[in-house]
Amino acid sequence: MRILGIDPGTARMGYGVVEDAGAGRERAVAYGCLETPPDMRTELRLQVLYRGVVDLLLEHRPDVLAVEELFFGRNVTTAIHVGQARGIVLLAAADNGVPVREYTPMQVKMAVTGYGRADKMQVQRMVRALLGLPEIPKPDDVADALAVAIAALHGEKFTSRLGGLS
Amino acid sequence: MRILGIDPGTARMGYGVVEDAGAGRERAVAYGCLETPPDMRTELRLQVLYRGVVDLLLEHRPDVLAVEELFFGRNVTTAIHVGQARGIVLLAAADNGVPVREYTPMQVKMAVTGYGRADKMQVQRMVRALLGLPEIPKPDDVADALAVAIAALHGEKFTSRLGGLS
Repeated sequence: MRILGIDPGTARMGYGVVEDAGAGRERAVAYGCLETPPDMRTELRLQVLYRGVVDLLLEHRPDVLAVEELFFGRNVTTAIHVGQARGIVLLAAADNGVPVREYTPMQVKMAVTGYGRADKMQVQRMVRALLGLPEIPKPDDVADALAVAIAALHGEKFTSRLGGLS
Repeated sequence: MRILGIDPGTARMGYGVVEDAGAGRERAVAYGCLETPPDMRTELRLQVLYRGVVDLLLEHRPDVLAVEELFFGRNVTTAIHVGQARGIVLLAAADNGVPVREYTPMQVKMAVTGYGRADKMQVQRMVRALLGLPEIPKPDDVADALAVAIAALHGEKFTSRLGGLS
């Protein structure tokens, strides 16, 4: 089982590929950021990001693409821009036949730390510990993408133990 | 000069194709709505809409794709969903080499009614009158798409009179 987690954004899109390492553990296969220059037209930035996500799907062949579901506490203009980036991520998944799973921030925190109200730093420390990384991945977008990938991996393993109900 | 105006949305995406009819007039070439069923997964709805927009671009060969720039007064969850639909519209334009123009709601109102604080009904009546349509196009998404297309047509004609500055 392999998951591609994405934290959508136009300037910077975090990604993390996480897979089942057996014995209830998980490992990071790859992680990083897709970036686009601020002086590029929005539609061209979205095109660059679409191609970047497709390249990740082709290179890593994930079973599932995972993104966070909701974006509380951001303003409407930010939400529009996150939405635009999120739209092309979902389209890239659909175009490549990869199922999408969405998780609320609380589900991600629960999966990673066991506590639905954990703060950002607690989540980042647990991401580092669970994946055995030398340090907390930076910027935050990368750690967030790995966190949602871990949540999806736990969710998918749980679902498959239930006999593939989904 | 021919413009494809789009009012982005996931459930319903309004479109309107408007072209220069000479003598300072404009005419509607086509208008309507792309719709997706509410029980379809979001990523598949976006895929349907992407293909729909590409079909419109191929059928009508617009010189410009026009969308509204800002979405004041809606909540964050709505903004995310509008953003997702808007992202795939911009991507479709980029993938087909059609330039995108964005207009604020005030610019659209100014272009259509001559008054930046016109209400929705005034805009719709002027859309009908300017395009010589038998009645106000319904639903609102269609009238909104035609309105932004008219704004873009006026804007492009003005720009080309200035000698193609853009």
